[in-house]
Amino acid sequence: MSETPDSAVRTYIDHHRGAFLADLAEWLRIPSVSAQPEHAADVRRSAEWLVDKLRETGFPTAEVWPTAGAPAVFAEWPADDPQAPTVLVYGHHDVQPAAREDGWAGDPFEPEIRKGRLYARGAADDKGQVFFHTLGVRAHLAATGRTSPAVHLKLLIEGEEESGSPNFRTLVEQHAARLFADAVIVSDTGMWSADTPTVCTGMRGLAECEITLHGPEQDIHSGSFGGAVPNPATEAARLVAALHDEHARVAIPGFYDGVTELTDRERELFAELPFDEGQWLRTAKSTATHGEAGHTTLERIWARPTAEVNGIGGGYQGPGSKTIIPSSAMVKLSFRLVAGQDPDHIEKVVRAWAADRLPAGVRHEITFGAATRPCLTPLDHPALQSVARAMGRAFQQPVRFTREGGSGPAADLQEVLGAPVLFLGISVPSDGWHAPNEKVELDLLLKGVETSAYLWGELGERRHRAD
Amino acid sequence: MSETPDSAVRTYIDHHRGAFLADLAEWLRIPSVSAQPEHAADVRRSAEWLVDKLRETGFPTAEVWPTAGAPAVFAEWPADDPQAPTVLVYGHHDVQPAAREDGWAGDPFEPEIRKGRLYARGAADDKGQVFFHTLGVRAHLAATGRTSPAVHLKLLIEGEEESGSPNFRTLVEQHAARLFADAVIVSDTGMWSADTPTVCTGMRGLAECEITLHGPEQDIHSGSFGGAVPNPATEAARLVAALHDEHARVAIPGFYDGVTELTDRERELFAELPFDEGQWLRTAKSTATHGEAGHTTLERIWARPTAEVNGIGGGYQGPGSKTIIPSSAMVKLSFRLVAGQDPDHIEKVVRAWAADRLPAGVRHEITFGAATRPCLTPLDHPALQSVARAMGRAFQQPVRFTREGGSGPAADLQEVLGAPVLFLGISVPSDGWHAPNEKVELDLLLKGVETSAYLWGELGERRHRAD
Repeated sequence: MSETPDSAVRTYIDHHRGAFLADLAEWLRIPSVSAQPEHAADVRRSAEWLVDKLRETGFPTAEVWPTAGAPAVFAEWPADDPQAPTVLVYGHHDVQPAAREDGWAGDPFEPEIRKGRLYARGAADDKGQVFFHTLGVRAHLAATGRTSPAVHLKLLIEGEEESGSPNFRTLVEQHAARLFADAVIVSDTGMWSADTPTVCTGMRGLAECEITLHGPEQDIHSGSFGGAVPNPATEAARLVAALHDEHARVAIPGFYDGVTELTDRERELFAELPFDEGQWLRTAKSTATHGEAGHTTLERIWARPTAEVNGIGGGYQGPGSKTIIPSSAMVKLSFRLVAGQDPDHIEKVVRAWAADRLPAGVRHEITFGAATRPCLTPLDHPALQSVARAMGRAFQQPVRFTREGGSGPAADLQEVLGAPVLFLGISVPSDGWHAPNEKVELDLLLKGVETSAYLWGELGERRHRAD
Repeated sequence: MSETPDSAVRTYIDHHRGAFLADLAEWLRIPSVSAQPEHAADVRRSAEWLVDKLRETGFPTAEVWPTAGAPAVFAEWPADDPQAPTVLVYGHHDVQPAAREDGWAGDPFEPEIRKGRLYARGAADDKGQVFFHTLGVRAHLAATGRTSPAVHLKLLIEGEEESGSPNFRTLVEQHAARLFADAVIVSDTGMWSADTPTVCTGMRGLAECEITLHGPEQDIHSGSFGGAVPNPATEAARLVAALHDEHARVAIPGFYDGVTELTDRERELFAELPFDEGQWLRTAKSTATHGEAGHTTLERIWARPTAEVNGIGGGYQGPGSKTIIPSSAMVKLSFRLVAGQDPDHIEKVVRAWAADRLPAGVRHEITFGAATRPCLTPLDHPALQSVARAMGRAFQQPVRFTREGGSGPAADLQEVLGAPVLFLGISVPSDGWHAPNEKVELDLLLKGVETSAYLWGELGERRHRAD
């Protein structure tokens, strides 16, 4: 039995949904576009607005945390019980750029409710999914008669996620002591579909590099010299072609070192999801699947590491032809990493592999960008089970488990704070993140509120049960 | 014994070199740049100037031949003996663009003689090497006491060679009857060095194509979809990587069909040339050789077919990174062809090879440009031996044989007229074709005059000897 009566939570949410949506609309009207310098003041205003609102919600501490870029918001609401677990919610208050002429039906910063959907930039990504915790924690208190949450509740809402979180790692390291948590709840993802609520258990990591190959000092004539000196565009292509073996496995020696393989149980759970490959291909704008032998599409995108070429270029690319051996060529590669893989090790093996493959007469440079580590919480982790139970109560059905193929700053929290990262999201694939007419489904948004209301009790109870 | 006394030829040239150089300088002052529309009138003026000069030289027929682009010049001087062989000299009167600010020491269209060199755009490529035939034929007549050449002499001097000869094939087909010849002398190449006079025996042909590969309808997220759909940039790279086998031989099935292999004699002759690989690499702006196993560098560039990638592009090529699977990618390939290879067959085998290699989900388009056929005259061909003897008399040493790795419109003459193509050039690699400060060595230019003076006798005698 749970300590929070579900009917009381629902009644509370019903009574307060009007004010909740009005507040969210006010926040969505602030165009907090972190990528556009002309909106820097709006991003600051968004942070200040959120601080005020969190104080109003009841958080005893709510602060703007400056960074070298756009500010983050931190808030904290301790439990009465000093032994209660500490939970940190991560989200972001900045949004993607949006302009009416991109194809929006209305002003992207003038929220509008049509047919049960709230349309605005940030409605789902991520203001809606941050804001549902405010009404969630109030419903939790109201339904349980508490004056403070069942967990030590912390929020860290960053202001640069849509700009690649350039200062996030530094911010987390700087405030690591105050950010201490037993679990991190990332409130910035989605779920399978409105009918199939899911909890995401991990994200892939990311390592990226650019390799530039230099052949002749300048472009040279393919008639005079062709067939007798190395061609750097050919060598760039050979590198890319050598990324995979005939089973579409990555062929870089050492690449799979340490990979956490899927368990049979996870494979079964993935296989049980109502996956429609035709529909998925339409979303992928593709006409055929292609990937590592022995794995399904979901396994490939969620749980297997990859090597992809994101860009390749060399020589003459204009109209017509030019009979040259190009002087240089470059490839941009990205590697999605899964749990157990270490970006530093990946950099080492990629460097060795590239250096080993190039012939005399072709010199190369290789530069790696900042890497993102993979994160994964085991299915049987108690905190993950708490999230699943809270969501199951809100949706009144058992939730299933997914992973996320992309990569995000959550991994920094996992690494710096040493806490498991859990993903709670109610957004659905049709919500149009980063696209025109972004929306959130109102009934799902309120399920998010409800999940949040149950979650603090579930996580608090967990500790008591574990005692 | 030759019918033309060499000393008489030399004396005649000595007496007339002043007027010859003054005339050439006048022609070089006309900036007949075919690639620049503002010089269209100059190209016409250059053609008219040449017609006047050829009439003055004694050609009974000299005409401007219009084309859809810039005009060519045709001239004809029949031999007295109707049984004499017919020889067609090919060259061009248009020049590459040139501007003082490109690094010229003086005005590129104001010829200047410094230290035995004549500097001007077109001095070597190709006005100098066309014009030496005018004094050559006069010296031939003077030294032999003839009133007309020992061969039926024809000249075809085109006006668009530096613009890719777009109308040349049509021109030749249109006038095939009047252009009939037993041999074609291309007067638009060079020789090994001032110390090593050489005759070129062939040029490689050229086939070019562009292959565009289409994957997802638009760029898609490498996190969401990476590892599970085909990546057209990877496939483009795999195509390029599959061009060659581990011996750097072209791996396209059927590519080598019909290739005329080098004879042992030719390999010996190539090997006897004073080839300095270090020097060659400096010219190639490269630091290592690389090519088909079992062949020397000279064999690779002159006598072996190649597949080169001239350009490759796909996905994101800007600064930093972009985690996408690109929607498309393209490669530009060129194939240098040798005698025995047919561009139509090459197109067929390349199309089949590409179609065969691409996975489901990647669709491709392949377009071929206009091809140039290879041409080659066997070492023992009597007309080739005549050219070698004429040049040997002028240089007073035996000449050696080379080939040319590039491709040119000469192949059209070979094909349409069904005549062997021979290459006579006195230009040296340091002459700076297409570069600032183009020049011709005056002593070599006059050896060209002298070679021309002997050539008509050598070719005329040949017929008589063959009777």
